[in-house]
Amino acid sequence: MSHHEYSKWHAHQQTPVVFNHHAPVIVNATNVQKIDLNPIKSTVKAKENKERILILTPLRDAAPYLPKYFDLLSDLTYPHELIDLGFLVGDTTDDTLAILASEIDRIQNGGIHGLPFNSVKIVEKDFGVNLAQNDVTQRHSFAAQGPRRKAMGRARNYLLYSTLTPEHSWVYWRDVDIVDHPRQILEHFIAHDKDIIVPNIWFHRLQKDGRITEGKFDYNSWVESEKGLKLAASLPKDTILAEGYKEYDTGRDHMAKHGDWRFNKDVEMELDGIGGVSILVKADVHRSGINFPGYAFENQAETEGFAKMAKRAGYQVVGLPNYVVWHIDTEEKPGNAAADKGKRSI
Amino acid sequence: MSHHEYSKWHAHQQTPVVFNHHAPVIVNATNVQKIDLNPIKSTVKAKENKERILILTPLRDAAPYLPKYFDLLSDLTYPHELIDLGFLVGDTTDDTLAILASEIDRIQNGGIHGLPFNSVKIVEKDFGVNLAQNDVTQRHSFAAQGPRRKAMGRARNYLLYSTLTPEHSWVYWRDVDIVDHPRQILEHFIAHDKDIIVPNIWFHRLQKDGRITEGKFDYNSWVESEKGLKLAASLPKDTILAEGYKEYDTGRDHMAKHGDWRFNKDVEMELDGIGGVSILVKADVHRSGINFPGYAFENQAETEGFAKMAKRAGYQVVGLPNYVVWHIDTEEKPGNAAADKGKRSI
Repeated sequence: MSHHEYSKWHAHQQTPVVFNHHAPVIVNATNVQKIDLNPIKSTVKAKENKERILILTPLRDAAPYLPKYFDLLSDLTYPHELIDLGFLVGDTTDDTLAILASEIDRIQNGGIHGLPFNSVKIVEKDFGVNLAQNDVTQRHSFAAQGPRRKAMGRARNYLLYSTLTPEHSWVYWRDVDIVDHPRQILEHFIAHDKDIIVPNIWFHRLQKDGRITEGKFDYNSWVESEKGLKLAASLPKDTILAEGYKEYDTGRDHMAKHGDWRFNKDVEMELDGIGGVSILVKADVHRSGINFPGYAFENQAETEGFAKMAKRAGYQVVGLPNYVVWHIDTEEKPGNAAADKGKRSI
Repeated sequence: MSHHEYSKWHAHQQTPVVFNHHAPVIVNATNVQKIDLNPIKSTVKAKENKERILILTPLRDAAPYLPKYFDLLSDLTYPHELIDLGFLVGDTTDDTLAILASEIDRIQNGGIHGLPFNSVKIVEKDFGVNLAQNDVTQRHSFAAQGPRRKAMGRARNYLLYSTLTPEHSWVYWRDVDIVDHPRQILEHFIAHDKDIIVPNIWFHRLQKDGRITEGKFDYNSWVESEKGLKLAASLPKDTILAEGYKEYDTGRDHMAKHGDWRFNKDVEMELDGIGGVSILVKADVHRSGINFPGYAFENQAETEGFAKMAKRAGYQVVGLPNYVVWHIDTEEKPGNAAADKGKRSI
């Protein structure tokens, strides 16, 4: 080494290090891997930057919804090679796993239009929870809300932490029983450049007289109120608030009461609680530890607790009142949940 | 298919599914992977069950401590082929990365006694935080505690979510500047079968007169008090409490005030806050979403917030007052931190 080379070398304060990049190898083999998270960004130029999106969907007794789910997924205009899919299958008594496998086989082999997705991970985990997911009356009863939301929160976190990898820039949470939305939904959400963003959730209902009416589905997206904060402060820390029940009057402003798909889709409103039907999250929000509390976080759990936690940590939580994602009609009945306020149907 | 075979097939409520297990493949290749989390347990028979442990250490300007760190790691009696290592290197101005690389090279090539570890992941992430880690006075000043603990919490979560994989049964958090502990520390902790467990943290100090004295290092492991709860309830939700400062008198019972390494190492005490020097966690606690708040969680952050969150979610948090892990003497001075109470030295 010449004197010139020597001094040039020592001009670095930090010795340059070249790592030997190994591909992942099986157990018992030596494996040293360097992961640089610094270049992983979540930007409005996601497509140009080839930013990777992880789409996550928790499944339980979801067999009937899967074909529609995959039809909509295949229609997404965001490049499929930049999308990874993750599913949690748990406490399932129907044929969810088999239908899921056959749908994935169909998609990944190009059986329908659009490229296959970059990868698919199916996580199996039974929590031993049986809250009669498909019995609307029981599922939406007031007493069931706390345990149900906690179990859902936990399940989402298991899914997240079994599928998120350092490559991901965005995580898109999606319920299995969505029936319609614009094909460019990911690009539309990304364009807002928010840490966490959700649309409004509506449904179509076929009435007995043959008319088709529109209804609002999701009362978990709301703006906090003084009344809600006072109510929470008066409750034990372990109590979980649920919207739309006469047991608790939170006085919160629900996004469902605002907006219409006929108006400007890009109007934003700041939220303090969100629903879980369709959430786009910058992956660093999850990496920094913000997730779906399976316990009472400031008297909220799951997606509403997620929003509360994100706000506490200083992240943006934004709703799009005029951007409507259509959910299946779960046939919420008057007498159930917020029927006395007419909140769960128009 | 015979009639007998046909009826036997349909006797299953759930269609059996055989997945094609692909090894992880690079971007753009089709990849379908099934992950079964159900068999992943954390038990007292960890070694016999070949339960995998992920050891995590956040590093910043840590170069001087790394050789000792790896000496101690190599000495661990838990089978090294069941151990994965993860490091976060961030906002570092010294030669941490180079020393780390050379130490890993030394370990993984069997340069010292003991087998290499199963795998090593080094995560690089700069948060742009500069809290003068090595300046004890500034680091331990009261005003620095909130932002410092939040940044540390965030960094821990980034490390966790970049290295935790579905195989792990346990996560062991370890500071880089530990100087001594029993080689069987993992087996000792595992034998307690607790969700979260921490030892007591002491140090040796060389006095000016040549005597070597023992000191207690960690005042973040404590039992909550009525006074502490009242104090928290009186503060804004964004305020982060820190122990040992005259600004806040929490009245909490510190584990540091109890225990002695000369007594029975297995005595347990239930804790509500913990320090981060050495924490063994059942991996499902992290998978369910419990992590290190980088924000005010019930007025605590990082490891103390982690314990608070775990307790809120119903997990066990246990300290071993007589089980001493020896930390380097960081030369906490009287006049700094809790000097008025003599809390940071004997």
